[in-house]
Amino acid sequence: MVRWEPGARERLRAAAMDLYVSRGYEKTTAADIAQAVGLTERTFFRHFADKREVLFSGSEVLAQAFLDGVAAAPQGASPLDLVASALTAAATYFPDERREYSRRRQTIISANPALQERELLKLADLAAAVAAALRARGVSDSTAVLAAESGVTVFGVAFGKWIAAGEERSFRELEREALGELVKMAASGTKASL
Amino acid sequence: MVRWEPGARERLRAAAMDLYVSRGYEKTTAADIAQAVGLTERTFFRHFADKREVLFSGSEVLAQAFLDGVAAAPQGASPLDLVASALTAAATYFPDERREYSRRRQTIISANPALQERELLKLADLAAAVAAALRARGVSDSTAVLAAESGVTVFGVAFGKWIAAGEERSFRELEREALGELVKMAASGTKASL
Repeated sequence: MVRWEPGARERLRAAAMDLYVSRGYEKTTAADIAQAVGLTERTFFRHFADKREVLFSGSEVLAQAFLDGVAAAPQGASPLDLVASALTAAATYFPDERREYSRRRQTIISANPALQERELLKLADLAAAVAAALRARGVSDSTAVLAAESGVTVFGVAFGKWIAAGEERSFRELEREALGELVKMAASGTKASL
Repeated sequence: MVRWEPGARERLRAAAMDLYVSRGYEKTTAADIAQAVGLTERTFFRHFADKREVLFSGSEVLAQAFLDGVAAAPQGASPLDLVASALTAAATYFPDERREYSRRRQTIISANPALQERELLKLADLAAAVAAALRARGVSDSTAVLAAESGVTVFGVAFGKWIAAGEERSFRELEREALGELVKMAASGTKASL
């Protein structure tokens, strides 16, 4: 049960991000975060399982957006259609107002190998969940994996551009661009002797 | 300096794999591995940095095979050609004689979340190295990432099939099949409104 404290969760998150940037993730404790906003450590743990979860608590919501996108695609959609629909839904998780938060989060994660591993694991879980959703829509096993992994790669490329300094295009536009590049790359054909 | 002990490295590796399967990775120590083949713990550490490296010491060789493959592609090769050439070279790392070892290694890794994270990190490093090699061949930044990640995904799908029970096709044939599926998936077009 979470006792109601107006905005406690968001205040804790904002304080955590400030401390992770200024003091470093490793050197920040849950108690430090709580204290910074005049709350107790116990209150922190009512909202987050640990200090890492401040950074990763959104990943279920993002994964659900991908799955909702697959579900929203019409019957008979091709594997690429299903992935495109998932990407469209995922973009709603990244409105322009979120860009600055995402930049700071990435700065924190890039500075810490353990957080990078955690991020890779979350992305692998995401790809596995999307692949399962594609299989449930009748896509063959290996094509489901290829399409899901491609979707997560397109997502990652779009995300990298979206948080780049000075970038102002929307997440969805950058996804569209990256998906177009993927299709073009795959269509570039191969004369190689594989 | 590694003192010469005939086949010590391979005997240590074989003993480690046996123990990781029978006793479990967590419960096996470097001393256990050394003892199993009548060598000292000190000798173990002359050959491997730690017990984890027994499983991951091949990853540099594999990464180099990918890079050699990119280098071997002719001038003017498309991004997909470059990736196909990398995959062809990578297949030489997985002759049929290696299949049983790879199956056992996968069993060990699948049983241990920390090893799975390590494997993901190695694959991410591999994709980053291939992307850098593609950029050096004049491929644009985002297409290099998309092509490299696609190559690693194709590699992963082929690997998963190659180690499946009863599978007898060669690694290269399975890579060819997966690459074909990727191209077909990407060419399936999208009518979605991304």
